[in-house]
Amino acid sequence: MATVGNSTNIFWHECPVGKLDRQRLLNQKGCVVWITGLSGSGKSTLACSLGRELHSRGKLSYILDGDNLRHGLNKDLGFKAEDRTENIRRVGEVAKLFADAGLICIASLISPYRKDRDGCRAMLTDGNFIEVFMNMPLAVCEERDAKGLYKLARAGKIKGFTGIDDPYEPPLNCEIEIIQKDGVCPTPYEMAGQVTSYLEDKGYLRDE
Amino acid sequence: MATVGNSTNIFWHECPVGKLDRQRLLNQKGCVVWITGLSGSGKSTLACSLGRELHSRGKLSYILDGDNLRHGLNKDLGFKAEDRTENIRRVGEVAKLFADAGLICIASLISPYRKDRDGCRAMLTDGNFIEVFMNMPLAVCEERDAKGLYKLARAGKIKGFTGIDDPYEPPLNCEIEIIQKDGVCPTPYEMAGQVTSYLEDKGYLRDE
Repeated sequence: MATVGNSTNIFWHECPVGKLDRQRLLNQKGCVVWITGLSGSGKSTLACSLGRELHSRGKLSYILDGDNLRHGLNKDLGFKAEDRTENIRRVGEVAKLFADAGLICIASLISPYRKDRDGCRAMLTDGNFIEVFMNMPLAVCEERDAKGLYKLARAGKIKGFTGIDDPYEPPLNCEIEIIQKDGVCPTPYEMAGQVTSYLEDKGYLRDE
Repeated sequence: MATVGNSTNIFWHECPVGKLDRQRLLNQKGCVVWITGLSGSGKSTLACSLGRELHSRGKLSYILDGDNLRHGLNKDLGFKAEDRTENIRRVGEVAKLFADAGLICIASLISPYRKDRDGCRAMLTDGNFIEVFMNMPLAVCEERDAKGLYKLARAGKIKGFTGIDDPYEPPLNCEIEIIQKDGVCPTPYEMAGQVTSYLEDKGYLRDE
């Protein structure tokens, strides 16, 4: 019996079908691809493109989108600092479950604070946390402004907007960095290819 | 743009690989098998047995165990009424994500209150919520008492224990009921077979 956080009398049930069995069924290895970057940096675009590419290779992935989860699991959370932290913690915990289920879990969140991302990394004890930094200049993201949010933030109508009046802390040791080449942003297909190559090289696209 | 709960400026991103694509890949249909019942009624036993049976048929399932999740996603929650409700809400939301990912998600929780379970059922808009009621007499569960919890509850050392000093509200319209036959509890294999037959009959074990 154990006491964990606010819970007591909690047992851990071991089940005989484990991660390795599921990986064998899927012929892939479960992991978390964590995409971080400014609003407008292309996180969702990469997530979708990567999901398509993996699916075309017969691999099972699932996208956890920070915005989408705020409609469900995290609908009780807002944007103040502790809510952002809790938002990211929960996404990290769910991503961990998906990786354990054998899926390539693609998490797409601004996740601006290093300590929150590192907290999620630490949840994946076997090191299957692949951090992808969308390293796009703020000016490029703001120029795109597909959602019109930068305009609202500049006008002071959104407070605490990452990159404007709230900091973005870039990763110090991410596995993959997406950057412009000669001032040109990579295409969705190129971005997905960069991540897929990494997954292939590291053996995530097969079970042995 | 939408306002959802405490969140504003949240968009919904549609991705081109959808549930149907994943179901085709897996040759099964995503759903939630929600196992409810008293402590000691055999929920975890059925969950494991069902997971084994599905795996042996090449089907991908994943178990969300109420106790296990209290080590991670729900470690901030205790056992008071609102925490129990939030615990179940979150498991429901995560189960919904797993079903959307194409998995047969097996959720195993006491989940004593009807309104909490019905809240989870309502999350699955397409009706893929299969409620399994472990209808075992309290005396049988208490006699087993594998975790020694009933003894503690009877001694007043655990407060608010379901079946002792907190109510269990049985389902009114569950899809599957596990019962004793002639005073004998079904074996894990028989219980799993009952659920697997249901899944097969309803077409969950193929994608079309």
